[in-house]
Amino acid sequence: MAQPELSNTLRLKRLGIDTHQEAVIYMRRDCHVCRAEGFSARARIRVNAGVRSIIATLNFINSDLLAPGEASLSESAWLHLGAEEGGPVSVAHARSLDSLSSVRAKVYGKKLTDAAFGEIMGDVVEGRYSDIHLSSFITACAARGLDGGEIVGLTRAMVAAGQRLDWGAPPIVDKHCVGGLPGNRTTPIIVAIVTACGLTMPKTSSRAITSPAGTADTMETLAPVDLDLRAMRRVVEKEGGCVVWGGAVDLSPADDTLIRVERALDIDSEGQLVASVLSKKAAAGSTHLVLDLPVGPTAKVRSKADADSLSAHLLNTARVLGISATALQSDGRQPVGRGIGPALEARDVLAVLQCEPSAPQDLRDRAATLAGALLELGGGAAAGAGVAKANAVLDNGGAWAKFQAVCEAQGGMRTPPTSRHQKPILSETAGRIVTIDNRRLAKAAKLAGAPDAKAAGLELHAALGQHVETSEPLFTLHAETRGELTYAFDYIESHPSIFEIELLE
Amino acid sequence: MAQPELSNTLRLKRLGIDTHQEAVIYMRRDCHVCRAEGFSARARIRVNAGVRSIIATLNFINSDLLAPGEASLSESAWLHLGAEEGGPVSVAHARSLDSLSSVRAKVYGKKLTDAAFGEIMGDVVEGRYSDIHLSSFITACAARGLDGGEIVGLTRAMVAAGQRLDWGAPPIVDKHCVGGLPGNRTTPIIVAIVTACGLTMPKTSSRAITSPAGTADTMETLAPVDLDLRAMRRVVEKEGGCVVWGGAVDLSPADDTLIRVERALDIDSEGQLVASVLSKKAAAGSTHLVLDLPVGPTAKVRSKADADSLSAHLLNTARVLGISATALQSDGRQPVGRGIGPALEARDVLAVLQCEPSAPQDLRDRAATLAGALLELGGGAAAGAGVAKANAVLDNGGAWAKFQAVCEAQGGMRTPPTSRHQKPILSETAGRIVTIDNRRLAKAAKLAGAPDAKAAGLELHAALGQHVETSEPLFTLHAETRGELTYAFDYIESHPSIFEIELLE
Repeated sequence: MAQPELSNTLRLKRLGIDTHQEAVIYMRRDCHVCRAEGFSARARIRVNAGVRSIIATLNFINSDLLAPGEASLSESAWLHLGAEEGGPVSVAHARSLDSLSSVRAKVYGKKLTDAAFGEIMGDVVEGRYSDIHLSSFITACAARGLDGGEIVGLTRAMVAAGQRLDWGAPPIVDKHCVGGLPGNRTTPIIVAIVTACGLTMPKTSSRAITSPAGTADTMETLAPVDLDLRAMRRVVEKEGGCVVWGGAVDLSPADDTLIRVERALDIDSEGQLVASVLSKKAAAGSTHLVLDLPVGPTAKVRSKADADSLSAHLLNTARVLGISATALQSDGRQPVGRGIGPALEARDVLAVLQCEPSAPQDLRDRAATLAGALLELGGGAAAGAGVAKANAVLDNGGAWAKFQAVCEAQGGMRTPPTSRHQKPILSETAGRIVTIDNRRLAKAAKLAGAPDAKAAGLELHAALGQHVETSEPLFTLHAETRGELTYAFDYIESHPSIFEIELLE
Repeated sequence: MAQPELSNTLRLKRLGIDTHQEAVIYMRRDCHVCRAEGFSARARIRVNAGVRSIIATLNFINSDLLAPGEASLSESAWLHLGAEEGGPVSVAHARSLDSLSSVRAKVYGKKLTDAAFGEIMGDVVEGRYSDIHLSSFITACAARGLDGGEIVGLTRAMVAAGQRLDWGAPPIVDKHCVGGLPGNRTTPIIVAIVTACGLTMPKTSSRAITSPAGTADTMETLAPVDLDLRAMRRVVEKEGGCVVWGGAVDLSPADDTLIRVERALDIDSEGQLVASVLSKKAAAGSTHLVLDLPVGPTAKVRSKADADSLSAHLLNTARVLGISATALQSDGRQPVGRGIGPALEARDVLAVLQCEPSAPQDLRDRAATLAGALLELGGGAAAGAGVAKANAVLDNGGAWAKFQAVCEAQGGMRTPPTSRHQKPILSETAGRIVTIDNRRLAKAAKLAGAPDAKAAGLELHAALGQHVETSEPLFTLHAETRGELTYAFDYIESHPSIFEIELLE
């Protein structure tokens, strides 16, 4: 049963403190409200301004930054509440976080019900979970695992905690790659192919979780992606498809919060992965879905057995949610294309769409395979004829024309930025490349600044099986600041085994 | 392998923002250092001022609170660095948090080595773990459990990450209650008894984790407890014992950080409980230890089986650490004494020491039992003669005299504060009390403001087995603000089953 929230009013002053996504309220330590309510530093407080309300963490001000009777908010909280300088704000004890008992139950190995997931996700979306609570939920689910029923429960709860789009008549097609393979940026190409063939593909993509780039990060270097729902609908009505950032249209907002914490932990467990993927798809109104699962020793999915288990959970959950889905396993032993990082990947995408002779063939082949499967699943091609149709629409320029039209409709096509600093990494020996460590390459690209620095990352010059000479460049680092370039380079220096090279006999 | 930390210098301006224990650095978003280093909001940054260094979370300032070239620090970071207005501060990327891979290994069920615990605790004490990382470590250890070897490894790592006291010749006696039983405030009484009998008991106590009061919170209403090591030594040399807050003498500082997160999660797992207790004892230089384990359905330890398992882990870990220990199981079905909350418990302690006729007999009996066991373990009484000796020193006023002397030596005896607001809670029926819910009583006391509000909590008027009439008071709520009184009362109203009363035939 909910406890009442007692309230008190203060005047807002904007201090301009940006805490990123964390909602913080600043109050004088000697404020009458703090004394009356018994607030302590880092207390979680309900903050009401007008009709909107959030839960914020309390920071005290021990100086005259605030006058008596004044309070301030972190920038994200200010924007979320639509606050105004001098406007009134009321504060109250946040009611106790009852759903935390379900998190504890999971820690101790109990199965969670649909209702429990619903309460947790409701509290998450309301901002009632602090980082400590979010991290415990994610860690408990990863450590104890979620069974099939729990995955469905979590997915449904995540869908219910946000809005759900309706695009009218099916099929609404969609594609998702269960990440972990740097440079595997097929989505913009697939959207161009299948919408050129007349299917509807209103694609919402995510930003990077633990990788150097998400599709939204890459696409943002080619066109605006933070479209709201109205703008997205306009693009889809006009062109049949789009590639926008899912976060801006508030689909499964709980997922965005969980992803931020998963990123800090570098944890991405099976159950949460399935719920994350399918909650976004269900909320986006998708009816037909092709899943790409790259498998390799340093990909996210490391073995065929893991891929089979993940496929089974994905397909089962999709079925329960009423989505018609196919899962394809692909080679995940090395990166795809040449670029790793938002702008560098965008350049590969452009090369494939423009049928440049130098375009990376592996990226093209993967995009055509997935687009072909999607065409067949969504009724855009006869069984067995999908890949040929996809290749034809790439070769005849139809996909490139459609992609430019989509970018224009999203707000205007952009040229991906180029980096200010580069440094080639040379082979220390001569021989044949026998393994490439995707994870360490991705880490180097992140240390170089990707995905926040759009032009940062790396560009590969060598692939598995290739023979290289001593001092031949294996890849080139790209960074926007010298500090980040040095940082990434030092990481590579201390991890020389990113490329394993077998000496020639 | 450690990466280098690139550095840059700014001038400090004190803004007076109190974030509690979280270290935050404030920098202008357009600061040249942020641009050069590629810092993003909430990045973890190494901050150096003079010879000291901490890891802080970055908040951006989008206003003129800071001039170009200036930076600020949260109050705790300012104090920790010994910073000065206008003084120089240099910032750098914090090196990557390699020990997080061990946390992930634990999430996925691997056993952690002594070295892994050492690295994690080293990083925790250096402030390199954010709340997200700390919460994941605690949750993973709770969900996956720690085996005997891991508990020893964690305990040793926690001891090694702080200072370790040496009091000269053993025995150095100590006592610990594995909490969960409100009002069970035997420690100040036991210290008075055994030091009056000539044993050395330099007691360091904790503040509340998830309870309405820790021994340090209660003792603080009777005398200063935040003594540094020098002051503590002076008290022990003079009186043979003390009751001070362990946090002020920097024993097992990792434990204090972990406890803050456990408190937010209301999680306290077996392995961490053992490591927490014994790291403090080992660091405090204790050689002989009596453990009190209250067992009851709403105590922390719920069954004899749980108590046996916990005892075994505690005694095994103590043995490996070279501590001679005994564990006593006690009745944990209801609170001990009358008061719950710092000042209210202090009043019970005084009544027992002063042999007032109204003193709670259960508290006296428990203190005498534990003191007796400690006297026997530490050579202060013959086997079987400990309890009688403890009772004698209570009755002859020796313990009370010693307690006053200890309080004076700690900085002067205080009178516990009384609350500004009270509200009696009346029985709704007539009958016999058959159960009392310790957890809900504790929660009500916390909602009333304990332990931060020293006078807050509750005072019991009825015990298990007692007959009560309709409208007879079961307990009285105490609060320092009206808001908190209402808040606690509303909780009680919505949870009428705190006292289960069996109707009379």
